[in-house]
Amino acid sequence: MSPPVASVTLEAIQAPIRPALDRVRRELRRIIQADFDLIRDVNAHLLRMQGKLFRPTILLLADRATAGSGAGEPPAARTVTLAAVVELIHLATLVHDDSVDHSVLRRGMPTVNSVFSHQVSVIMGDYLYSRAVIELVALDDLEPLRVLSRVTNEMTVGEMRQLMAHDPLNFSEEQYDLLIRSKTASLLSGASEVGALDAPPAERAALRRFGEALGMAFQIVDDLLDYTGDPEALGKPCGSDLREHKVTLPLIAALPRMREDERRAVARLLERPEPTDAEVGAVIDAVARAGGLDYARARAQRLGEQADAELDLLAPSPARDALRASVGYVLERRS
Amino acid sequence: MSPPVASVTLEAIQAPIRPALDRVRRELRRIIQADFDLIRDVNAHLLRMQGKLFRPTILLLADRATAGSGAGEPPAARTVTLAAVVELIHLATLVHDDSVDHSVLRRGMPTVNSVFSHQVSVIMGDYLYSRAVIELVALDDLEPLRVLSRVTNEMTVGEMRQLMAHDPLNFSEEQYDLLIRSKTASLLSGASEVGALDAPPAERAALRRFGEALGMAFQIVDDLLDYTGDPEALGKPCGSDLREHKVTLPLIAALPRMREDERRAVARLLERPEPTDAEVGAVIDAVARAGGLDYARARAQRLGEQADAELDLLAPSPARDALRASVGYVLERRS
Repeated sequence: MSPPVASVTLEAIQAPIRPALDRVRRELRRIIQADFDLIRDVNAHLLRMQGKLFRPTILLLADRATAGSGAGEPPAARTVTLAAVVELIHLATLVHDDSVDHSVLRRGMPTVNSVFSHQVSVIMGDYLYSRAVIELVALDDLEPLRVLSRVTNEMTVGEMRQLMAHDPLNFSEEQYDLLIRSKTASLLSGASEVGALDAPPAERAALRRFGEALGMAFQIVDDLLDYTGDPEALGKPCGSDLREHKVTLPLIAALPRMREDERRAVARLLERPEPTDAEVGAVIDAVARAGGLDYARARAQRLGEQADAELDLLAPSPARDALRASVGYVLERRS
Repeated sequence: MSPPVASVTLEAIQAPIRPALDRVRRELRRIIQADFDLIRDVNAHLLRMQGKLFRPTILLLADRATAGSGAGEPPAARTVTLAAVVELIHLATLVHDDSVDHSVLRRGMPTVNSVFSHQVSVIMGDYLYSRAVIELVALDDLEPLRVLSRVTNEMTVGEMRQLMAHDPLNFSEEQYDLLIRSKTASLLSGASEVGALDAPPAERAALRRFGEALGMAFQIVDDLLDYTGDPEALGKPCGSDLREHKVTLPLIAALPRMREDERRAVARLLERPEPTDAEVGAVIDAVARAGGLDYARARAQRLGEQADAELDLLAPSPARDALRASVGYVLERRS
């Protein structure tokens, strides 16, 4: 893998599919429009929160990179719907995750559970997910449903693993891998695969693996940003994971190399319902000193290389270039 | 409609399909088996809570009542799976509902949110629902998915309506109808329709309407039992709806006929976060005096007659008799 281009922007990656992304936004609006006040209010809030459409971007690029002779054409209506549905599933998951975690902020905006209520979050997540299934059924094709129902189920298993991942001494890198694979990589893998449903099986499989490696790298970088990121850019305070007693790769890698007193500080923090900023800061420093951040960075880098290598199978195209660039974007992002 | 047979039992209704119901239980076990400890624990709890399999019963009877010359045969494997999936969707909904309502007891057993946690409930509901979709996809037929995804979405809209139904003076019988139609009748209607997927369109439509009328009657009786039922048999205290400020048909019907002081007592109760037993008892008495219970009973009776009439289209059979008897069961049940 060539070293990723310095500071590749999402805008550059999305350039080849900008008109299609506008169609995805309109499609998303159509799908969740409702004649019910409360649903409309929550939807408006979600659409404002709607982020960078990273999953639809990967889906549309996978579609274009495997389109063969049709690569210059705009994507089919069905592909646009699939891209919107993938974002919808992502939104449904965020709404339930924030409710489960009692999160107050997401992308710098108040979460649904904090603006409305926990009740509304649970019901609204169910609403969005069942709307997604209805749209998939309307496409009259079981194949995307097969991929995305499996993915959704895996995400719930990932959330379960998250709930049970509170004991750092018993939480291994293998368990962390299982967690991020099901929690994050599964949907990116599904998005990438669903974009290539009409491609030859080998390309479809390569894009599934591409999405999985990319998704794992994505989550590791996310977990790193919680240690090193700029709270302004993140839209949430740094050290949130530690505060919520979430053990991620930097800590897992650092623990065996920490001094005894540092390990005790970690154990203390994880027992404290509300650790202080000083306690969180001390553990962040200890993790950095013990090489936990470097280890996680190297791991993300290797996953990025794996993702990149999967693309070798595809014919060269601007869309394939953009998929390659998305690896650099994931590894270098600051928010 | 002939007056329902006095004290018709569920056992009698289920007699023609008892072996099939055993297959449904095994199928349900197969579908939710998991190699993940926490999921296994929650599933075991749910299987103990698993109730009377009323929805699978209706589905299997609808299948048999429309089977034509194959009416003597055991149901196809696909029908058994559909019956298990319908119960699974029902369980997923209960888990989320109990979590949204912070309910402690369900069918006399502690709820998932009280035994495990609110978090586990949200995730587990998602897990069960996505498992249901996976099973439906595996049947390689979009038709049941079409029915059941619509139904699931309607149920979430019903839950939203429930959340917004706290102001009795603005909550009309029409709104109540919309609420119970989406919250309860939709799944029974879906179960009944899915049992008749292979039947001629007119029979399928009749069974859809049968299930809807039956489901509305079911919910009205449920709401009546909250006023009149035996807490022992119900497995939860009487007056729970009033305590949770849920306004149902008996109160809606009674309010315009209440004395001014009784109406004020209702308003006071609905403003109290934790009404006393005496306050709840006084409102129950006032509702009875103003004819709210009689009104709701008559409404359920009419819906039962509607359901019964839909069955006239089907050829006579023991299964059709059992469907008719299920109307009597719904109207007369005490728990």
